[in-house]
Amino acid sequence: MMHARGRLLGLGVGPGDPELITVKALRLLREAPVVAYFVAKGKRGNAFGIIEAHLQTEQTLLPLVYPVTTEALPAPLSYEQVISDFYDEASVQVAEHLDAGRDVAVICEGDPFFYGSYMYLHDRLAARYEAQVIPGVCSMLGGASVLGAPLVYRNQTLTVLSGVLPHDELKRRLADADAAVIMKLGRNFPKVRQVLAELGLNDRALYVERATMANQQIVALDAVDPQSSPYFSLIIVPGEKWQG
Amino acid sequence: MMHARGRLLGLGVGPGDPELITVKALRLLREAPVVAYFVAKGKRGNAFGIIEAHLQTEQTLLPLVYPVTTEALPAPLSYEQVISDFYDEASVQVAEHLDAGRDVAVICEGDPFFYGSYMYLHDRLAARYEAQVIPGVCSMLGGASVLGAPLVYRNQTLTVLSGVLPHDELKRRLADADAAVIMKLGRNFPKVRQVLAELGLNDRALYVERATMANQQIVALDAVDPQSSPYFSLIIVPGEKWQG
Repeated sequence: MMHARGRLLGLGVGPGDPELITVKALRLLREAPVVAYFVAKGKRGNAFGIIEAHLQTEQTLLPLVYPVTTEALPAPLSYEQVISDFYDEASVQVAEHLDAGRDVAVICEGDPFFYGSYMYLHDRLAARYEAQVIPGVCSMLGGASVLGAPLVYRNQTLTVLSGVLPHDELKRRLADADAAVIMKLGRNFPKVRQVLAELGLNDRALYVERATMANQQIVALDAVDPQSSPYFSLIIVPGEKWQG
Repeated sequence: MMHARGRLLGLGVGPGDPELITVKALRLLREAPVVAYFVAKGKRGNAFGIIEAHLQTEQTLLPLVYPVTTEALPAPLSYEQVISDFYDEASVQVAEHLDAGRDVAVICEGDPFFYGSYMYLHDRLAARYEAQVIPGVCSMLGGASVLGAPLVYRNQTLTVLSGVLPHDELKRRLADADAAVIMKLGRNFPKVRQVLAELGLNDRALYVERATMANQQIVALDAVDPQSSPYFSLIIVPGEKWQG
C-alpha cells in the first residue's frame, strides 16, 4: 500500500530560554513522530536541551552528529568535502523517515534560515518533499533583549557579520555599519576586539555569552578572557539612539 | 501606603501569524493588567490583531495612537518634533500605570528592539522603571520562512536596509551585501526595484507582503503593482547557497 510521504519541518526553537520557543514550533514538535537535531560528538546539543522537556517517549530521536568540530583538518582532508558528505548522509537518514510517511521535525537553535545547519538539509530535500519552516527568535535578538540594547532605529542599516571574517574585511564593514552584530566569536574574539578598538567602537560594543540560556554571561568587552569566549557569544554595536 | 512600581514589558509578538508568539510572551501578556500598543488613527493595529484572542476582560487596554501617518508634514510642523512629543506623552501615559504599581505589557509586532516603536518608550523609561524585553520572531525571518529562502549561510554578511534610503546609498550597500533584506517598502518600492535591476539582482530577489499573516501575498518582483505595495512588505536577496 502506498502511503503519503512525510513532511520535512524546520523548527526554530529560539536562542536558548526554553520559553522562547513559539507556540507553533512547540505544537509541531509535539506532533512529530521523528525529531532530528544536529549535535557535536559527545555533546547533548543546544537545540536538544531547549526542547528536551517537551519530548514524549513514543518520539524517535535522530541525532545528526557532526564528523568534525573544527574547519582546520589535516591534509588530504578538506572541511568542505567532509561536511558536504556529512550533510548528504544526514539527508539520506532524514529521507528514509519521510519516505516511510513519517514527518521529521528538525529542531534548530535560533531560526532555521539564519546561519542554521538545517539549511543544508532544506537545500537537499525541499525539492522532493513538502518542507515547512517555522521561524524562530534568532540569537542576535535574544542577545539584544538581555543586554537591554535597542538594536536598530528607524532607517538605520543593520550589518550582521561572522567573526570568522579577516581583520580588514571586518573593519571595512564595521566602519560602514549604523548598527552591527558580530556572531561566531570563539577564538575569533581577540581579532574582533582589536578591530572594534581600532574603530573606536569598543565603548559602544556590548558582549554576551549564551544569551537567554541558564548559564548566560554578560561581561564588559574589556573584561572578556579571550581564551574562554565560546562560539555562542556575540557582540552588538547598537544603532545611535534616535530620539523621535 | 507605598506599593511597588510596575514593570515595563516589551513583548515581541512575532510577524503576524498569532501562533508565532513565544510561549514566554504569551504568558506575560496574559498576566499583565495593562496592555499597551501603538496604532495608527482609525486602525486596529497589527500587534493588537495578533494577540486579541488572548485578551481577558479584566485587562486594561492602552492604545497609543500615532498623531501622524506620514513624515511629510506642512510647515511649520516637523515630523521629528511631532513624533518626539508623541513618544513623550505616550511615556507619561505608560508611567502613570507603572507608578500605580501595574505592569504594562507593550505588545510589539515582530521584535521590540528591531525597528520597533517600543524602543522609544524603553529609552524614556528603562532608567526609571524595571524593564524586561521578550524578543520575538522578526518580520524578515517570517518572510524568509514563507518564501522558503535560506537567508544567510556560513560566514556571509547580512545587510538589513530600509527602503527609505536614497537610491545611491541603497545601491552602494546592496552591491556590497552577501545577503540582504529590504524593509519599509510601500511607496519606496519603485526605487528599490530599480536599484535591484541596476545591480542585476532582480532575479535573485524575492518579495512578500504581510508575511505569515492571513492576507499574506507572495508575488514575483516584476509583477508587483508599485501603487499597491504596502509598508509591511519586504524583499529578500538570499545569500548564495553554500553546498557544504
